[in-house]
Amino acid sequence: MTERLNTIIKTLNSEQLDGFLLFDANNITYLSGFTGHAATALVLGQHAYLLTDYRYFEQAKAECSVFEVICRDRIKQSLAELIAELLLKHGIRRLAFEADHISHSAWLGMQTHWPETDAVPFSRLVEDLRYTKDDGEIASIQQAAKIADDALHEMLKSVKAGVTERELAAELEYQMAQRGSQGPSFDTIMLMAERSALPHGVPGDRQLQHGDLLLIDFGAVVNGYHSDMTRTFVFGQADEKQRTVYQTVLGAQQAAMDALSEEVEGLKLHQASQHILNQSPYAKYQGEGLGHGLGMDVHELPFIGMGKNLMVKRNCVITIEPGIYIPGWGGVRVEDDVVLTDNGLVQLTQFPREMIEL
Amino acid sequence: MTERLNTIIKTLNSEQLDGFLLFDANNITYLSGFTGHAATALVLGQHAYLLTDYRYFEQAKAECSVFEVICRDRIKQSLAELIAELLLKHGIRRLAFEADHISHSAWLGMQTHWPETDAVPFSRLVEDLRYTKDDGEIASIQQAAKIADDALHEMLKSVKAGVTERELAAELEYQMAQRGSQGPSFDTIMLMAERSALPHGVPGDRQLQHGDLLLIDFGAVVNGYHSDMTRTFVFGQADEKQRTVYQTVLGAQQAAMDALSEEVEGLKLHQASQHILNQSPYAKYQGEGLGHGLGMDVHELPFIGMGKNLMVKRNCVITIEPGIYIPGWGGVRVEDDVVLTDNGLVQLTQFPREMIEL
Repeated sequence: MTERLNTIIKTLNSEQLDGFLLFDANNITYLSGFTGHAATALVLGQHAYLLTDYRYFEQAKAECSVFEVICRDRIKQSLAELIAELLLKHGIRRLAFEADHISHSAWLGMQTHWPETDAVPFSRLVEDLRYTKDDGEIASIQQAAKIADDALHEMLKSVKAGVTERELAAELEYQMAQRGSQGPSFDTIMLMAERSALPHGVPGDRQLQHGDLLLIDFGAVVNGYHSDMTRTFVFGQADEKQRTVYQTVLGAQQAAMDALSEEVEGLKLHQASQHILNQSPYAKYQGEGLGHGLGMDVHELPFIGMGKNLMVKRNCVITIEPGIYIPGWGGVRVEDDVVLTDNGLVQLTQFPREMIEL
Repeated sequence: MTERLNTIIKTLNSEQLDGFLLFDANNITYLSGFTGHAATALVLGQHAYLLTDYRYFEQAKAECSVFEVICRDRIKQSLAELIAELLLKHGIRRLAFEADHISHSAWLGMQTHWPETDAVPFSRLVEDLRYTKDDGEIASIQQAAKIADDALHEMLKSVKAGVTERELAAELEYQMAQRGSQGPSFDTIMLMAERSALPHGVPGDRQLQHGDLLLIDFGAVVNGYHSDMTRTFVFGQADEKQRTVYQTVLGAQQAAMDALSEEVEGLKLHQASQHILNQSPYAKYQGEGLGHGLGMDVHELPFIGMGKNLMVKRNCVITIEPGIYIPGWGGVRVEDDVVLTDNGLVQLTQFPREMIEL
């Protein structure tokens, strides 16, 4: 934590900023250690404050080592008044603030309280630190991925004709929770047959039938870090079209993985994957993006594909998730979490990637 | 939907506004019927647009009856460019926008695209409609409450010495999902013994022991509508302090319910509850607020207590949740969802409120 904070302070100094106001809960956790969800952080010169209220005061004091925790009485003092008081005390002239993480109206109401301070919208100050992961962060994502792998193996025992999307999703989330996941990484996607073509469908009452595709996109959370994996199964024997589409998607995923043997522009990975998809008769049904960074947020830097071209650096944890979605027929997506390390590419999700007929 | 939209259009007219730009997913669902989570809505004169992309286009067309759905190619056109095009086409001069639901930085980036249009931050345009519920909305919350009641009954069968907070939380969420809940209303709070004094604790590995308090705060979701209930149990025979604190909290809750026999200021309910709590030897450990509105958001208007004083009108669905939290000893909260109807107060959560020794 101290090291992370010092990096931020150095950046502020180099930008002639003497303060930084944070609103994003994950950025605040990343810098301070506080894991609750109602706090504001203020880095003023060498001094860092965590502002919270009675609900989180004890927890914050226990979790924060470097930040001084202030307990605000929400009836007696507004957040803006408390911030103004601290800015004045430290004589802050130029303050960076997380303009991505406060609503326009909240900011309008707040900034009038510190007329002496020049507030500068600043993006990606903490996000740029979170862009690559340290060993502890990678270990947490790996643990989450392991829980997801194991839970999926267990859930598959409940797969039978007539079971609904909703029932299977509930079972999968239960198995993850029993294994120590803090919650689903996001709303589990569990879609059968032609519904698997919906990129963001919600599990419903559709019952599993022989020959159905079954697309499952889900993840676990450990220490606040997310995993994210997709597998597509066939219930019964796959027909030729299912087999062809699956092999194409798997090949596209492998091509992107192969292209990630060193630090590379995300666009290069996307192109490697598209090169395979474009040769397929189903090329026009390919999905837009290729993947995204993964960590405290389930979608974070770097984003890959869709007109974005960020570097995939060593120790970036990313998803690689090409897909083909044919309206009225169904969709196939295969998604894994990978990280480029000093020893090459490591796949954090370990569930078999080959097509499985259930 | 048409009626809701017409009410909004009337309000716009009366405020000399000729357009309204919406960002909040629940407000958009409320007006348009679209239940996905990546859309922007634009009401221009008598014409309403829903702007989304290929991921949600089919779903949006199926769900929206009154709104015209536009599928934006995210690579070719930014959201701001599309909005600017529509504002120009309809000759919009004065545009209200949901300043509470867009980040400051996103707004700064966006507004430069329509120099001809005067944008007016506007709060609570849709929120004021959502303040009171119609019969369908109340029925959905009631269904969610019923699922939560039933799931809690089932979960209690798993209560035994040595079971952990995390295991019980997983079981409870599983039972809700099996009964058709779309997901937990929020992260389930399941806290034992002295940990029950943490107003926002996270379930952990604490194992249940004889004599423990067990505080459970949770809810289900049906049709996008949330329930929210808290029960506090004693594992084994309650001691005198547990009994006293419980009866005080229950009395405070009953006093607030009794005060809600007609439309009333929220402060009146809070005072009725405080009047009981203040007579207790544990008065200084009472929680801050009394409750909140409940609907598409788990916390919404009207908020009750903590310096807030909004009217609790007929057909407002609210929680009533007084509590006593003694650090190092534990906490007791009893929370129910209620609504004042033409036939008096209706309690939507039905699980017994009296102290239960497990």
